[in-house]
Amino acid sequence: MSYARQMLDTRPGTSGADADVLAAAIDALSDCAQACTADTDADLAEPNLGEMVRCVRLCLDCTDICSATLGVISRPAEHDASVTRPLLEACVAICRSCGDECERHAAMHEHCRVCEQACRRCEHACREFLDTRK
Amino acid sequence: MSYARQMLDTRPGTSGADADVLAAAIDALSDCAQACTADTDADLAEPNLGEMVRCVRLCLDCTDICSATLGVISRPAEHDASVTRPLLEACVAICRSCGDECERHAAMHEHCRVCEQACRRCEHACREFLDTRK
Amino acid sequence: MSYARQMLDTRPGTSGADADVLAAAIDALSDCAQACTADTDADLAEPNLGEMVRCVRLCLDCTDICSATLGVISRPAEHDASVTRPLLEACVAICRSCGDECERHAAMHEHCRVCEQACRRCEHACREFLDTRK
Amino acid sequence: MSYARQMLDTRPGTSGADADVLAAAIDALSDCAQACTADTDADLAEPNLGEMVRCVRLCLDCTDICSATLGVISRPAEHDASVTRPLLEACVAICRSCGDECERHAAMHEHCRVCEQACRRCEHACREFLDTRK
Repeated sequence: MSYARQMLDTRPGTSGADADVLAAAIDALSDCAQACTADTDADLAEPNLGEMVRCVRLCLDCTDICSATLGVISRPAEHDASVTRPLLEACVAICRSCGDECERHAAMHEHCRVCEQACRRCEHACREFLDTRK
Repeated sequence: MSYARQMLDTRPGTSGADADVLAAAIDALSDCAQACTADTDADLAEPNLGEMVRCVRLCLDCTDICSATLGVISRPAEHDASVTRPLLEACVAICRSCGDECERHAAMHEHCRVCEQACRRCEHACREFLDTRK
Repeated sequence: MSYARQMLDTRPGTSGADADVLAAAIDALSDCAQACTADTDADLAEPNLGEMVRCVRLCLDCTDICSATLGVISRPAEHDASVTRPLLEACVAICRSCGDECERHAAMHEHCRVCEQACRRCEHACREFLDTRK
Repeated sequence: MSYARQMLDTRPGTSGADADVLAAAIDALSDCAQACTADTDADLAEPNLGEMVRCVRLCLDCTDICSATLGVISRPAEHDASVTRPLLEACVAICRSCGDECERHAAMHEHCRVCEQACRRCEHACREFLDTRK
């Protein structure tokens, strides 16, 4: 069980199905932020560097937005939909763009395939979390 | 002249009125993230700590979201409205909430008055930047 | 297998025992940063709030330092001991302090017990990684 | 007067010469983190991209370490030399490396000249702050 899930279990009012979805989003955001950071460094080492520039930039944006979203949803006591909804929408949008760009390089670069998977999973987990907040 | 403005001036295609608005947003985000971090620490030292909890939490969210927005708009080459628009909207929303909460404590705590000003300026600068992107 | 481990496996020269230690440090840093963020929010909800202030502050420092260390060691291509060594030492120091403080509250607050475990594991993983760099 | 200086002035025990040095470090860290982020994006747009890779990587490390140091010293209530000393040493080391690398490109790329200045100022301000803590 992840630390995120364990932490949620210690708090009253954050259990059940919604807590599963929240914990899944937290874990996916954390993994995606790290995968994009690692992918940036790997992209910069590739011989076809000129073709990797867009991937580097999207990975940098994805890390920043996932990290902020991770921080905000890890502090559930003051969740405010006027803040979390657009933040999660920004996160879904960058995870989709970054995942699409990584997919273009996945056949040539295995690190982009791994990063694509982290982005897709994070996009999906953030959408699911958005759906529980409607 | 701020470093942000100087950096923008070195790049082709980021000059003129839009660059002024972008540089103002970058500087305001940077200041707001720091002010909220400092205000968190100051809040935690107050005798009426129980009344400051919401302020602490909003300041933490504000720092995270301002920092991510700062990162993304400081890399203008890949600005994508589907990402930057909701991100800036989240930033405007948290700056408004955090500014409102700081205002409630401003008469008693000078640090909340300073933080309120940083939040208001950031909210305004992000709105202006959003308006130039329509 | 974590994304961190998968990413390292795609890169030449980052395999074997050292890669295991690096991947373990990355995963522990990521978990510790999140656990400390969650613990901050949980601390702020406790009736004995006045006694939790030091815990909140150490958790905030721990999140910031773990996040930076995570970023730096996730980009292994330019590892420079004059930077990574003191950074990891700062990380070990804050994980120990934060773990010690969480331990003081662990009997009363289950979330502090979970956070203590994340801090201890991170301190240990960073020490191991430092040892491989000697 | 910067927000950082104003915030410090509202707090008892953080005035005088030491507060000047602390405020200067906070402002320099904030500027350096942003300049390095902007320089990363500008580097990625250069025709001699292959020669800019080391600069990109050092800028990314510099942003991460400056941001964490900024957070920690902006919360002065729990300053602990066993944490802040190595953290500031890591910050001085990365600012020096990143400033040196930017200097190598300064004649060709004006954005690297601006970033070099931000790194040098930050290195100096962090050293001064370290000296006051002896």
